[in-house]
Amino acid sequence: MRTSGGEAASAVPGQPARQDSLRTRNLALVLRRIADAPTPVSRAELAAATGLTKATVSALVDTLVGSRLVGELEPRRTRPTGRPATGLVLDGEETAGLGVEINVDYIAACVVDLAGRVRHREVVQDDQRGRVPERTCAAVAAMATRAIEAAAAAGLIVAGVGVAVPGLVDRPGGVLRFAPNLGWRDIDVRRLLSRAAGLGELPVTVDNEANFAALGELHSDRSAMPDFLHVSGEIGVGAGIVLRRELFHGTRGWSGEIGHVTVDLDGPRCRCGAQGCLEQLAGQEAILRAAGLSVSAATCMGGQATVGRIVEAAERGSARTHAALRQAGRALGVAVAGTINLLDIPGVVLGGIYAPLAPWIAPEVQREVDRRVLSAAWSPVAVRVSRAGSDAAVLGAAGGVTTAILRDPAEWMRRRDLRLAVGT
Amino acid sequence: MRTSGGEAASAVPGQPARQDSLRTRNLALVLRRIADAPTPVSRAELAAATGLTKATVSALVDTLVGSRLVGELEPRRTRPTGRPATGLVLDGEETAGLGVEINVDYIAACVVDLAGRVRHREVVQDDQRGRVPERTCAAVAAMATRAIEAAAAAGLIVAGVGVAVPGLVDRPGGVLRFAPNLGWRDIDVRRLLSRAAGLGELPVTVDNEANFAALGELHSDRSAMPDFLHVSGEIGVGAGIVLRRELFHGTRGWSGEIGHVTVDLDGPRCRCGAQGCLEQLAGQEAILRAAGLSVSAATCMGGQATVGRIVEAAERGSARTHAALRQAGRALGVAVAGTINLLDIPGVVLGGIYAPLAPWIAPEVQREVDRRVLSAAWSPVAVRVSRAGSDAAVLGAAGGVTTAILRDPAEWMRRRDLRLAVGT
Repeated sequence: MRTSGGEAASAVPGQPARQDSLRTRNLALVLRRIADAPTPVSRAELAAATGLTKATVSALVDTLVGSRLVGELEPRRTRPTGRPATGLVLDGEETAGLGVEINVDYIAACVVDLAGRVRHREVVQDDQRGRVPERTCAAVAAMATRAIEAAAAAGLIVAGVGVAVPGLVDRPGGVLRFAPNLGWRDIDVRRLLSRAAGLGELPVTVDNEANFAALGELHSDRSAMPDFLHVSGEIGVGAGIVLRRELFHGTRGWSGEIGHVTVDLDGPRCRCGAQGCLEQLAGQEAILRAAGLSVSAATCMGGQATVGRIVEAAERGSARTHAALRQAGRALGVAVAGTINLLDIPGVVLGGIYAPLAPWIAPEVQREVDRRVLSAAWSPVAVRVSRAGSDAAVLGAAGGVTTAILRDPAEWMRRRDLRLAVGT
Repeated sequence: MRTSGGEAASAVPGQPARQDSLRTRNLALVLRRIADAPTPVSRAELAAATGLTKATVSALVDTLVGSRLVGELEPRRTRPTGRPATGLVLDGEETAGLGVEINVDYIAACVVDLAGRVRHREVVQDDQRGRVPERTCAAVAAMATRAIEAAAAAGLIVAGVGVAVPGLVDRPGGVLRFAPNLGWRDIDVRRLLSRAAGLGELPVTVDNEANFAALGELHSDRSAMPDFLHVSGEIGVGAGIVLRRELFHGTRGWSGEIGHVTVDLDGPRCRCGAQGCLEQLAGQEAILRAAGLSVSAATCMGGQATVGRIVEAAERGSARTHAALRQAGRALGVAVAGTINLLDIPGVVLGGIYAPLAPWIAPEVQREVDRRVLSAAWSPVAVRVSRAGSDAAVLGAAGGVTTAILRDPAEWMRRRDLRLAVGT
C-alpha cells in the first residue's frame, strides 16, 4: 500500500496520463523539494534532484517566488568556481494556516506560517462537558477571529482553517458524529464556526484531534520517523496513524480510536457504551482516580494543570501514583502492541498527557510491546516521547493547511490571485 | 492515505511526470478496465471510459491481444445501427500464475489462469510441525514442479509463483523470519524452493498466508467489499487487510498479526512468548480443547477433517462445543472490534476454519463489534463469510501473479517475448 510523499506528481488514479497537468504537478514537486531540503537549495540542485531541465525549474521557481511561497536568500558560493547560487527556502512571510481545537477541558487556536513558525497562540483551560455545542463553538469562533486579526496585523494571509475535535468526524461534511466525552452527537461544527468574522470564505477542515496531533508531531520534529503511531492521552485517548509522512484515515476517516480498544474484557464501563476500553484504564481521569487524586478538583483546573498534579505526586514518590501510572502504562502498552501487530508500524510516540508522564509510562509501554509484538525480537519497537506535547493537535490543524498548499500550490495560487483581485 | 486501483496510471512518486511512460501506463489502464468490466467491453466503450482516443485504444488493444492477454469474442450488436462491436475479455488460454502454500498441517499448490479460472489444484493434509524446513520445502517444490508440468500440458505459461507461509516474511528477501506454530526462524524459503525443476527462472513472491488469503477472497468474490479485514482461522490466526482492493502490508510487510493481539491480559501462554493472544482463545486447537475433542487425533487428520469434527459436534448439539465456539467467537469479535476501531474498516470476512464454523461464530463476532466499535451505532460493521474458504491463501498466491500482470502488462510482455525467443 502506498501513501504518497510524491502524491503531487501522481496522475489522478483511474484517469489516463495527460500533458496538461504536468505543470501543476511539477510545481508541487519543486515546492516539496524546497520544503523537504534540510538547508536552502539552489535551482541547479533542484534540477538535479527532480530530473527536470534547469530552464523548467527556473520558470517554476519564479512562479513560486512571485506567489510568495518561496523566498530567495542571499547568493552563496557552493563551488570554488562559477556563479554563486541563490538559496531557496519556503517563504513564511505571507502565507499561513489557522488551527483551532475543541477538547474536553480546553479550547485553543494557533497560526502557523508556511515556513512552520508559530505566529500566534491562545489556549483557554475550560471544561466543555455539559456545554451546548453552540456555546463552545461561539467561543472557538471568537478565538479564530482574534487569530485571523493577529495574523493580518503581521502581514499574513490565512489560507484555511483546521478544526480539531475529540470524536468521530464525517470529514467531507465537517460534522462531528460522536464525541463520547463531550456527549455530543451529529454537530455541524463547520457550520457553527462559519459564523466567525473572517472565517466565512475560508476552507475549513474538521478532523479528529488525535489525527491532527499526529500531524503536529510530524511538523514539529524534522527527525520524526516516517511511519509511527502517535497516541494522545487526554481525558479521552486517541491515536493518529502516520504512514510515509501522511495520515492514515481509514475508509471513512474514523481510524485511530485506540481509546476504545478493549484491554480488559470485563473491565469498567466506558462512555461509549462498551466496557474495558483503554481510556477507562489509561485516560487522564482513570489515572487520577487510581492515584487517589481528586477528579473534580482537576476538572476545574483544566488539562495541563491536572497533569502537573500527577507529575508532582509521582515525583514526590507517591506509591499509589506510581502504581496508577504502571497500570495505565501497561494497559497502553497492550493496546499499542496490538496496534503494531495489526499494522506493522515501527514506532510509537507518546503524546498529550503521556509526554510529561513518560518517565513512568514509557518503560511500561516498552516492556509490553517487547513482550507482545511478534516481530519485536529482531526489530524492537521504538517508544518515543512527543516533542509537540499538548499543543500537537492545534499545531497539526494549522500545519494541515500549509501542507495542503505544499501539495497543490497551483490551487492556492488561483485562490490567492482571486483574493488579491477583490482586495480582501 | 491512498491505495491505488489506478496505480498503473500513476507516475512514480517523487519523480517528474514524463511522456515516455505514458504508453506503459495506458496499456495497464486499458487492461485493467477490461479486467474489471462485468461483461465484455468494446474498443469504443474503452475509449469512452478512459478518455483516450479510439485510435490509441485500438493500438493498445491490438498489442494486448498479440501478447495473449486479451481475447476477442464474436462481434455483438450493441446498438440498432452501426457495425457490431467486438467484445474484449481477459485471455485465460496462455498466461497463468502458480500459488503454493506451506501451512501448519497441510501443503498445497494451484494454477490460476489470467481469466481467474483454477486450472490445477493439489492439497496434501500433513502436519509439518517438527519437520525440518528443507523437507517441507522439498515436498512443496515437487508439488510446484507437478503444477508447472500440468500447466504446460494445458498450453499455459506460468508467469510467476506466490508462496504462502504461516509467519512473518521479509518480503524483499523471501525469507520467513518467524513462524511460531512451525517453530521455524529465518528460513530462506525462496532459495529452498528455487531448486524445484522449472521454478528457477520464475519470479517468486513469498508472503504471509493470511495476506494471500485476503487476496484470494478478493479474487473469488466479484462483489467483495473494496475495504475489508479477512481473518483466517487455522491452527494460527492471521488477518489480511484489504484497502481499495489492495493489500495493506505495513512498513515491513508484517501487518495483520491479529492472532497475537492480546484479548485476555492474563490469558494462556502463546507459542510467540506472550500471553492471552487471540489464537490461544480462538485458534483451531483452542476450540478443540475447549470442546473436549482430542487435539492429537485431529492433528493426524489434517485441517479440513478437523474442522469437520467440530462442525459435526456442534450440529449434533454438543453443549460443550457450543460453549467453546461462543467463547472463540467472543474473543475473535473483541479483536476484530479493536482492529476496526483502529483502522476504520467497514467489514470483516470470516475465513479459514471460521467459514464452516460461521453459523456459531459469526453471531458472536457481530455482537461484540456492535458493542465495541465506536462508529457501529450509525455504521454497522458487516460480518461476512468467506467464499474462498480454506483454499483462499493458495488461490490468492496464484492470483497475486496474474494481478501483477494486470498492473504492469508491459513488464510481462518483455519477459514473455524473451522466453518465446529462447524457446522456453
